Amino acid sequence: MKVTVSRKAHFNAAHRLYRKDWTDDQNENIFGKCANPHYHGHNYELIVHVRGNIDPETGYVMDMKVLKDLIKSEVEEKMDHKNLNEEIVEFSDLIPSAENMAVVIYNWLKPHLDQAHTLSVTLYETPRNYVSYSG
Amino acid sequence: MKVTVSRKAHFNAAHRLYRKDWTDDQNENIFGKCANPHYHGHNYELIVHVRGNIDPETGYVMDMKVLKDLIKSEVEEKMDHKNLNEEIVEFSDLIPSAENMAVVIYNWLKPHLDQAHTLSVTLYETPRNYVSYSG
Amino acid sequence: MKVTVSRKAHFNAAHRLYRKDWTDDQNENIFGKCANPHYHGHNYELIVHVRGNIDPETGYVMDMKVLKDLIKSEVEEKMDHKNLNEEIVEFSDLIPSAENMAVVIYNWLKPHLDQAHTLSVTLYETPRNYVSYSG
Amino acid sequence: MKVTVSRKAHFNAAHRLYRKDWTDDQNENIFGKCANPHYHGHNYELIVHVRGNIDPETGYVMDMKVLKDLIKSEVEEKMDHKNLNEEIVEFSDLIPSAENMAVVIYNWLKPHLDQAHTLSVTLYETPRNYVSYSG
Amino acid sequence: MKVTVSRKAHFNAAHRLYRKDWTDDQNENIFGKCANPHYHGHNYELIVHVRGNIDPETGYVMDMKVLKDLIKSEVEEKMDHKNLNEEIVEFSDLIPSAENMAVVIYNWLKPHLDQAHTLSVTLYETPRNYVSYSG
Amino acid sequence: MKVTVSRKAHFNAAHRLYRKDWTDDQNENIFGKCANPHYHGHNYELIVHVRGNIDPETGYVMDMKVLKDLIKSEVEEKMDHKNLNEEIVEFSDLIPSAENMAVVIYNWLKPHLDQAHTLSVTLYETPRNYVSYSG
Repeated sequence: MKVTVSRKAHFNAAHRLYRKDWTDDQNENIFGKCANPHYHGHNYELIVHVRGNIDPETGYVMDMKVLKDLIKSEVEEKMDHKNLNEEIVEFSDLIPSAENMAVVIYNWLKPHLDQAHTLSVTLYETPRNYVSYSG
Repeated sequence: MKVTVSRKAHFNAAHRLYRKDWTDDQNENIFGKCANPHYHGHNYELIVHVRGNIDPETGYVMDMKVLKDLIKSEVEEKMDHKNLNEEIVEFSDLIPSAENMAVVIYNWLKPHLDQAHTLSVTLYETPRNYVSYSG
Repeated sequence: MKVTVSRKAHFNAAHRLYRKDWTDDQNENIFGKCANPHYHGHNYELIVHVRGNIDPETGYVMDMKVLKDLIKSEVEEKMDHKNLNEEIVEFSDLIPSAENMAVVIYNWLKPHLDQAHTLSVTLYETPRNYVSYSG
Repeated sequence: MKVTVSRKAHFNAAHRLYRKDWTDDQNENIFGKCANPHYHGHNYELIVHVRGNIDPETGYVMDMKVLKDLIKSEVEEKMDHKNLNEEIVEFSDLIPSAENMAVVIYNWLKPHLDQAHTLSVTLYETPRNYVSYSG
Repeated sequence: MKVTVSRKAHFNAAHRLYRKDWTDDQNENIFGKCANPHYHGHNYELIVHVRGNIDPETGYVMDMKVLKDLIKSEVEEKMDHKNLNEEIVEFSDLIPSAENMAVVIYNWLKPHLDQAHTLSVTLYETPRNYVSYSG
Repeated sequence: MKVTVSRKAHFNAAHRLYRKDWTDDQNENIFGKCANPHYHGHNYELIVHVRGNIDPETGYVMDMKVLKDLIKSEVEEKMDHKNLNEEIVEFSDLIPSAENMAVVIYNWLKPHLDQAHTLSVTLYETPRNYVSYSG
């Protein structure tokens, strides 16, 4: 009996989308307002989905409190109120697009989960734009 | 042309998470505040997803009004304003975690659907915690 | 320059609506399913509104982090995962309707605020039912 | 590294559900209030999901601004503030149920996407009813 | 102890905004797409607010179930799945703008309430546009 | 017949909360994570409320399309995808707290409205924190 449990979390951060090897014009051409050198920012809404069997002893796939704390330590404490380009080492050479952020978050969380569990992450950059990644 | 139709419903209930064969300390250790012997409760948001072919005569996979009434008779009338541990026979020996509730709701609904249709259920226990089950 | 700052919080609890001095029939007649002796429960969404002048030094009416912590200590820790009738002394002789809960929460918070600030509370009992109280 | 990017859009429209080859009684029998000859209407919330590899140069599966503009030109400009039965040629002989609308929208968008991308659409007819179609 | 109780409801309807005494050009000039002679439609979200003293016997300002039923009989049954211009007598000579709809709904509900209670209504025409009227 | 019409809008921006005349320690002491010198950011949800009489000719207090365009030109184009501290002249000497932002937005919009109309603005900094200002 495989069930997926999902937990929502929240953080906010500044970022800009640009390539160091491009000129300002090239960056603005491709990334538009998102290339603004002074940065802009978002409230990111994150949903972490963990799929596995129900443990018959507890009725849990995974204790949601443990999942909440894991998201806090592995994602929120790294990203909340941060400048993604300047303060997150993973984005020193990687554009902090929502797509790349979802992959980075997945890679942060995966090693901490039971190997029998599958993981996927959904990341809302705005209420109208979001991305999903399942490894 | 397979389409999934989804219908949201709502009920609220009291429950507690605990095992009768554990001591109070064991229960509190594993289930924390959720083990409170005086019960706590939730507004459960339920989404029922039915997947099948569009009937070319009506343009429907399934009449949403029929689905709404089915959720009402098979889920809401059983669970709404109830104490899950005390008043739902399925939980007399099964912990009413969101995971187990999703399985129970799936099993209540499945026999009433067209056999050609596939079913899955999503159950929000809080706005930040939810589970999904597809049989 | 008076501004209102608002902070959302969340707790869940069990309760029932009934009068000890009424018969079961009277209670069910007036309170319907809400009188269920086995209790039911809700996810309560609380919004606390504080109105006052902007402090020119900080740009704040009130530090939202302080308000968040105040709601946590004065409301969430008292009510979250609790049975309102059985475990909250204010409801030993007061029906825990959303209306009365809003008044109780207001009275818990008011003494902790700057006297120059005005307070109001909004309490969602379900996504479709809510109440507001301003003293 | 396959990621799904999703973009929400909005339009509103009038429609009615009925078959020209049925009597009024047959239509009302099957479609109920939705058969009202004077029409009724909805705010449709549309979510378009595009799945593909992250372009390592931009960090994008697909530029969300391009996707937003595509939804605007291919869906919103055709359907927004329109009568679906009277003004959308696809529904001259097809019942504008949410299911059929999702298929029509999918077929409008698909030819404009990169062939390596997969598409699915989710359409909310009301906050409680929605459908999904993936081709 | 004055408390405001609020109840959300939902209906959907078709309408158009136009004046019979104006030309088509004048109507399109002022009302834009909303003047479409074939109609368009919305999911209307209605919130009804009733303010009064808490009844010490019940803990209620007003029984929410009674308010729910009142909204159903006085508003939903008249407007749901209807064409406002064609089927609601109040709009035979009154433009069914959200503003006028709020006033009409207020006038339908007010006579059914306790005279000691004050009423206001909030009406969402789309998730981004809404109006409020308090008599 | 006074009615309030409300329109939601969206922009996102980077900011930090700090005083130039304070040391880094003082700033971190008062503003916590919000003082981060590398900035952080938010999706701001703005609701603009305009109160006035219904124009009997149009059924409008104010054309919502005009209000939408006004918010776009006076607020979104100035703030969207910007760094509030670095790029908005009003915040060169004013802390861009949500409270101060609401006042600045109010002052930008007020001169463009009919003098008979009253204005208030609600600004969500996160889904859980928001402020309101009415002049």
